[in-house]
Amino acid sequence: MNRVFNFSAGPAVLPLEVLQQAAEEMCDWQGTGMSVMEMSHRGPQFISIYERAVADLRKLLSIPDDYEVLFLQGGATAQNALVPMNLLRGLTTADYVNTGAWSSKSIREAGKYCQVKVAASSEAQGFTCIPDVADWQLDPKAAYVHICSNETIGGVEYHFVPDTGDVPLVADMSSNILSRPIDVSRFGLIYAGAQKNIGPAGVTIIIVRKDLLEHAMPSTPSVFNYQLQAEKDSMLNTPSSYGIYIAGLVFQWIDRQGGLAAMETRNREKAAILYDYLDRGEFFSSPVAISDRSLMNVPFRLRDESLNQQFLDGAQERDMLQLKGHRSVGGMRASIYNAMPRAGVEALAAYMADFEQQHG
Amino acid sequence: MNRVFNFSAGPAVLPLEVLQQAAEEMCDWQGTGMSVMEMSHRGPQFISIYERAVADLRKLLSIPDDYEVLFLQGGATAQNALVPMNLLRGLTTADYVNTGAWSSKSIREAGKYCQVKVAASSEAQGFTCIPDVADWQLDPKAAYVHICSNETIGGVEYHFVPDTGDVPLVADMSSNILSRPIDVSRFGLIYAGAQKNIGPAGVTIIIVRKDLLEHAMPSTPSVFNYQLQAEKDSMLNTPSSYGIYIAGLVFQWIDRQGGLAAMETRNREKAAILYDYLDRGEFFSSPVAISDRSLMNVPFRLRDESLNQQFLDGAQERDMLQLKGHRSVGGMRASIYNAMPRAGVEALAAYMADFEQQHG
Repeated sequence: MNRVFNFSAGPAVLPLEVLQQAAEEMCDWQGTGMSVMEMSHRGPQFISIYERAVADLRKLLSIPDDYEVLFLQGGATAQNALVPMNLLRGLTTADYVNTGAWSSKSIREAGKYCQVKVAASSEAQGFTCIPDVADWQLDPKAAYVHICSNETIGGVEYHFVPDTGDVPLVADMSSNILSRPIDVSRFGLIYAGAQKNIGPAGVTIIIVRKDLLEHAMPSTPSVFNYQLQAEKDSMLNTPSSYGIYIAGLVFQWIDRQGGLAAMETRNREKAAILYDYLDRGEFFSSPVAISDRSLMNVPFRLRDESLNQQFLDGAQERDMLQLKGHRSVGGMRASIYNAMPRAGVEALAAYMADFEQQHG
Repeated sequence: MNRVFNFSAGPAVLPLEVLQQAAEEMCDWQGTGMSVMEMSHRGPQFISIYERAVADLRKLLSIPDDYEVLFLQGGATAQNALVPMNLLRGLTTADYVNTGAWSSKSIREAGKYCQVKVAASSEAQGFTCIPDVADWQLDPKAAYVHICSNETIGGVEYHFVPDTGDVPLVADMSSNILSRPIDVSRFGLIYAGAQKNIGPAGVTIIIVRKDLLEHAMPSTPSVFNYQLQAEKDSMLNTPSSYGIYIAGLVFQWIDRQGGLAAMETRNREKAAILYDYLDRGEFFSSPVAISDRSLMNVPFRLRDESLNQQFLDGAQERDMLQLKGHRSVGGMRASIYNAMPRAGVEALAAYMADFEQQHG
């Protein structure tokens, strides 16, 4: 078996032992004679897989009892519409903080359902930082305040939880959920597409404070009405069952690594290897403000951009893939989610040093 | 490896060779060093998987060029809302034919978006037949006519395509798509959740005539706007990529079996084994009108219902699972989709004969 270091921003690398277990169990899950893909979602086998996944996620994130955990479909992009449809609660405005490509998408979509107020933006800084919270223009009558906790494209991450008073804080955590412990009680709602730190694309996790439910707009499709799904343990319709199974294996893997505190230590160490190298000289550089640098997505540039393709080709020869930056920002990007082994980051840093020595 | 005969109504049995290929390729797809789950949906590897799946589906169903093929998320239940949101085109009413549990669900959900007219219903017959088309009250001003081409719970199937004139015909084909050839040009829109004849839950296929697009309600979430997804080849957001890969393997498997004409022959033979036995005596019976019996889901009853549990227990001992009828109708149900081998149906019929001999 050949394995590469896959720096894709998502869908992204998964733990090899999770994939190996999935392969072994593919045709016959635990002696049942069925693949998980073939199981009725209402049967005892899948229910046990589902309940274990929910319990493990609750444990990993210490999710308080007054929060629902839902496994829905449609990805975070669907949530850009479904959050306002579910959470406006008869109110007419929502505050959004714009920190880059994903925030901007959320803002555009929410505008179909309410008056969006951009409470703060780092657009003038080229989305290279989190706007200073002292300058946020928060509206106490807003239905919620929306942030993107990690901008996958720009590589900008919140390393704090903003205080939004009585207005619920909503976070798109698609690209940094489960990378470190968080205080869920500080949030009204957390959502995340699975395809970075959780599992395969097609699973969307919603963690929502129960008192915010029951006020969805009448036009909300039933399967995307959080309250209706909460009443049915996410099984108002057939869930993305195989994806939930893989997510559950990932939760077990994180637990075996020592949980989120251990993940944070590993993730800080991995990111430091790259940022330390980027800051060492001028051949490479990081465009992001030091205090707001993402531990998950590390964008960087070569001083001489005419070497970009050569850099990518050399990386590919060394089995390091998907290092090209998003087309909207250019340059390079190394996505180093939970499942990226330290060895992958070390190999990248070693290659960067070699490349610099050859071309610097 | 242990394998059972899994008669689940969905998620349901998949072809063993598809599962085996998926297991073999799980950690390293075709020498790329990545699982399909780990691939960027915009990378050349996944794009090749996606394009092959679309092309194979188009070939299997002979889909005309003026139809879009979309791979979305949310299952058929989401489409109960998304069909009216996308297809009302400024009109205010839609016709629905009620043939059972799934039609009824579609009707309830559509009522949130338009005035639903029930053009025909078999409710008075206990949903055991398709209402005679001569009695359908079709409204020429309806935005569309909606049918469920196969009622998974009641075991009632359309063996003809109703003529709806200039009003587009919309069909929920979740549980009989790909079971036989169909004339796609007779439909305005076909939708299907994957988890019966296509692949894992979480993939939803939409086949829609292009001239019906571009009129979605403004409140339609962008990722569920058919036109926007058509413009982006279903990649406005990250699709359920692993599910699409499995669906693609199933399409290839169907092609190797001889395509849909061969599937129909096999499916007719399999269903006949069961219906012939059910009609032979009075120990077992089928509640469905002979002309409307489903080739996919075969509900049946024991004359003496006090033997139900004993029948199920005996089936389980012989590795035949999921034969219990849906709780709303009781009795038994054998779902015998494409991937159920003839040997499974023969084993079930043989067991039924044994059971009758013991208890009859």
